Amino acid sequence: MAQFNLTLSCSNRPGIVARVAGHLFERGCDILDAQQYEDQTVDRFFMRVAFRRSGATDIKFLQDGFAPVAASLNMVWSLRSSTERRRVALLVSKADHCLVDLLYRWRIGELEMDPAVIISNHPATCFSHLDFMGIPFHSVADAAGTKALQEEQILDHIERYRVELVVLARYMQVLSDALASRLSGTCINIHHSFLPGFKGARPYHQAHEYGVKLIGATAHYVTAQLDEGPIIVQDVEHISHRDSPRDLVRKGRDIERRVLAKALRLHLEDRVLCNGRKTVIFDS
Amino acid sequence: MAQFNLTLSCSNRPGIVARVAGHLFERGCDILDAQQYEDQTVDRFFMRVAFRRSGATDIKFLQDGFAPVAASLNMVWSLRSSTERRRVALLVSKADHCLVDLLYRWRIGELEMDPAVIISNHPATCFSHLDFMGIPFHSVADAAGTKALQEEQILDHIERYRVELVVLARYMQVLSDALASRLSGTCINIHHSFLPGFKGARPYHQAHEYGVKLIGATAHYVTAQLDEGPIIVQDVEHISHRDSPRDLVRKGRDIERRVLAKALRLHLEDRVLCNGRKTVIFDS
Amino acid sequence: MAQFNLTLSCSNRPGIVARVAGHLFERGCDILDAQQYEDQTVDRFFMRVAFRRSGATDIKFLQDGFAPVAASLNMVWSLRSSTERRRVALLVSKADHCLVDLLYRWRIGELEMDPAVIISNHPATCFSHLDFMGIPFHSVADAAGTKALQEEQILDHIERYRVELVVLARYMQVLSDALASRLSGTCINIHHSFLPGFKGARPYHQAHEYGVKLIGATAHYVTAQLDEGPIIVQDVEHISHRDSPRDLVRKGRDIERRVLAKALRLHLEDRVLCNGRKTVIFDS
Amino acid sequence: MAQFNLTLSCSNRPGIVARVAGHLFERGCDILDAQQYEDQTVDRFFMRVAFRRSGATDIKFLQDGFAPVAASLNMVWSLRSSTERRRVALLVSKADHCLVDLLYRWRIGELEMDPAVIISNHPATCFSHLDFMGIPFHSVADAAGTKALQEEQILDHIERYRVELVVLARYMQVLSDALASRLSGTCINIHHSFLPGFKGARPYHQAHEYGVKLIGATAHYVTAQLDEGPIIVQDVEHISHRDSPRDLVRKGRDIERRVLAKALRLHLEDRVLCNGRKTVIFDS
Repeated sequence: MAQFNLTLSCSNRPGIVARVAGHLFERGCDILDAQQYEDQTVDRFFMRVAFRRSGATDIKFLQDGFAPVAASLNMVWSLRSSTERRRVALLVSKADHCLVDLLYRWRIGELEMDPAVIISNHPATCFSHLDFMGIPFHSVADAAGTKALQEEQILDHIERYRVELVVLARYMQVLSDALASRLSGTCINIHHSFLPGFKGARPYHQAHEYGVKLIGATAHYVTAQLDEGPIIVQDVEHISHRDSPRDLVRKGRDIERRVLAKALRLHLEDRVLCNGRKTVIFDS
Repeated sequence: MAQFNLTLSCSNRPGIVARVAGHLFERGCDILDAQQYEDQTVDRFFMRVAFRRSGATDIKFLQDGFAPVAASLNMVWSLRSSTERRRVALLVSKADHCLVDLLYRWRIGELEMDPAVIISNHPATCFSHLDFMGIPFHSVADAAGTKALQEEQILDHIERYRVELVVLARYMQVLSDALASRLSGTCINIHHSFLPGFKGARPYHQAHEYGVKLIGATAHYVTAQLDEGPIIVQDVEHISHRDSPRDLVRKGRDIERRVLAKALRLHLEDRVLCNGRKTVIFDS
Repeated sequence: MAQFNLTLSCSNRPGIVARVAGHLFERGCDILDAQQYEDQTVDRFFMRVAFRRSGATDIKFLQDGFAPVAASLNMVWSLRSSTERRRVALLVSKADHCLVDLLYRWRIGELEMDPAVIISNHPATCFSHLDFMGIPFHSVADAAGTKALQEEQILDHIERYRVELVVLARYMQVLSDALASRLSGTCINIHHSFLPGFKGARPYHQAHEYGVKLIGATAHYVTAQLDEGPIIVQDVEHISHRDSPRDLVRKGRDIERRVLAKALRLHLEDRVLCNGRKTVIFDS
Repeated sequence: MAQFNLTLSCSNRPGIVARVAGHLFERGCDILDAQQYEDQTVDRFFMRVAFRRSGATDIKFLQDGFAPVAASLNMVWSLRSSTERRRVALLVSKADHCLVDLLYRWRIGELEMDPAVIISNHPATCFSHLDFMGIPFHSVADAAGTKALQEEQILDHIERYRVELVVLARYMQVLSDALASRLSGTCINIHHSFLPGFKGARPYHQAHEYGVKLIGATAHYVTAQLDEGPIIVQDVEHISHRDSPRDLVRKGRDIERRVLAKALRLHLEDRVLCNGRKTVIFDS
């Protein structure tokens, strides 16, 4: 039996849960899991409902049925089948620990996505030890003065491969404002620090010099503001004075890959809703 | 405006959310937060709804209104006002770190309870540094051969002070089966190990001899099976070979007090539902 | 048998461990625990040695013996008996969770210090539920325009009570540069954020607005640079979108008190050495 | 310049550190890091010294020099060059997450070992997506009644490839007492539970039925007692009632791979000393 995920947000008012649950019941849907949240500071309501429906069910039938409910409450909403896999582009530079990890999790069925293309500013030879399992790979130019060209190539690939989500899996090029805006809300980045600390380059070296006792990583949506988009997942590990910057980089790899993998899984399972510069996470 | 917490569980079937949400809407209630869970292995449905209602609202009016809904779905349920504080008995032996912590959290408004009585198998002089702020204190006999008598005294206090919840805040006497059964579901214990490891006495010494690299604590409901009731909260801390049993006891105190305080808060906020020998926790 | 802690740092060169260990052996001392660290970036050596010596041992005898060794290697060093308790001043504003926690740990023997005085910018009536167990309490003026006067009073108390260590246990007054410099290296502060994020006032509200998924606390030595002194301990906890600023303050209290207590214990056990703007921590 | 690691343990007596440090100084060695530990319950002393020596240094020269010191104090000891890589056999069944992780960490230089052979009770086709980078692979028979034969094959490979350390990277066959004893002290296993809880088969299903709120993994040396050897590393993660056994297996994979990788790194860096059924870990 297919499972469906409905996510929505709207201005708060009484009766939303009853309205949504009533509609789904009338349509023969059985709620498996539902979570709500009301942000009282902005008076906005957020909801995620996972439900199933017996018999062959066309997603369009469900969407058409819910559209009037959504319209009457002026909702921002999405209704997807959990079997419909998103087409994902994975962007990577030289450090491939996140890429390797995401591909592994995908191969064993942990991440329900459809990797449509892998893009790097480095040549394919950098990844000769990896089995891409048929996923197309493209290298984009990285020479000085060609940033615009490079981003044009990226956009071409995104369109050609009908990409729905871009994952910057340690892609170490700063995106232009134009590209960042274009991808806003559909692009997840892993930043190798516990934001808002240590923005910018070489955060582990910054952390080492500052003498902090914990290092972390942050997965967030990309927006036009570099390292400032809505945060999805953060985690940290304890460090000591004995840790050199090289040790921090090593420890950081473990944090980065698990933080990015978790953020991606949450997104793929429709568990992340944006609320201004923040996120609402309906975790399992 | 008062807030109310409704918790319920019943056999799973379609339409429960719609039914509950519809009923609350008709009664003029506004859902603040709702969480559901369906245990597919036993086909049982669990729900917690926090809602408010404008105007003076009698809890009996709400309960009477919901009773027919509950009956028709054969629910186990509870509906409480969040302003109605539970009457709690705190039982303690010599080590008072949990007691001190719970009283502090209560004093600053973190734990919304009404401490009705403090009971110890030690005399009041053991607690001379504590300000009980008017909470009655009773010492119960601890001499050999008087266990039955001691438990009789405890039950008397529980009845006299109309206690709704008993917290064993490092009360180091093993309860008789009779008392444990009598308190079943209304008594929270803190066990100073990460269950199921190191049941029984002196768990930190057991942990030290075993050579584990983490120690923990477990808050659970008391049932007739010692150290086997449904677990509410568990947590751990890393230790090393340098830690003596005395160090483990010290580190353990920190874990115990935060685990017990969290379990108690979850219970007081109607966030814990029992599911056989397990719990469903609707955390914030 | 008394235990002694020797801490030292000096320019790195071969043979330091042999020299120190040889000296202690000749003096009849038995090393219980020794830890070294070499900061290769600044070519500096750090060491902590815990040792015991049978028979009555005068600390001066040991210090006089070690002084020539220390001089020949140009060491910064300290040699203390573990039974010699530091005289500590505890400064606090209204929120007393750290103060209560420190006093409790001291009372049960977890913190080996000698609380010499408690100072607050609030009156004694704020702390009427606490048993100070004979520790003198002083309130210092907090009216506008009297900051200099207030700090003069604090310094008077520090001198009068021969205070060796000042603990700012949620003392919410910004110290003047003069006082901060005066206390440099002998004053521990708890800052209620994971520095370097959210410096300054109301860090939990900042964290809430930023949308971070973890909050933390930082215990550090006070220097003239506000919130910038060498970090001793940091820790964090996960939070979610459901946590209001009030929830963050509640969760933060738990982090703050355990971070400050740990930092204080490390300091009292001579486990913290300063290395420029960073610390070397020889933890057990 | 080469770095050397000396580890030793012996009965405790005064002067050991002075003796060892003095000897190294005389031989022209410069101590980089030294850590000691004295187990007072069994009166035994443990030490790890990392040092360097300028000029070409033969390990035999150092070992011959230290042997008399060691003999005079009846030490159990080891002295290795950090450039001398151990020959490691990796054993794996179907679940390859630990194998993939270890090979990746080795490839990028995080684990300083020399993978000599990969052995599985499953055929090579199970691992067709992995690049073994020239490491020999052998499948050993798994049919009923051939356990003795299977273990004979494993021992043959261990000898033929001159294996110094065996890593059971989720090798799901129970070793015979004979093989376990034969490998005692030179074989690391990852058990997928937080021992001593949930020994034996399907620990995640056991954890799910018990209703624990944390799951964990344990890396330990193999001894004749199944799941009872000295523990090297343990870690846990929080879980909730929403986690199915399948979710626990997923979360467990992350814990297992990081726990095993850490234990292996500690072993390869000569940071683990056995102390009866426990370990002494001199972590960085």
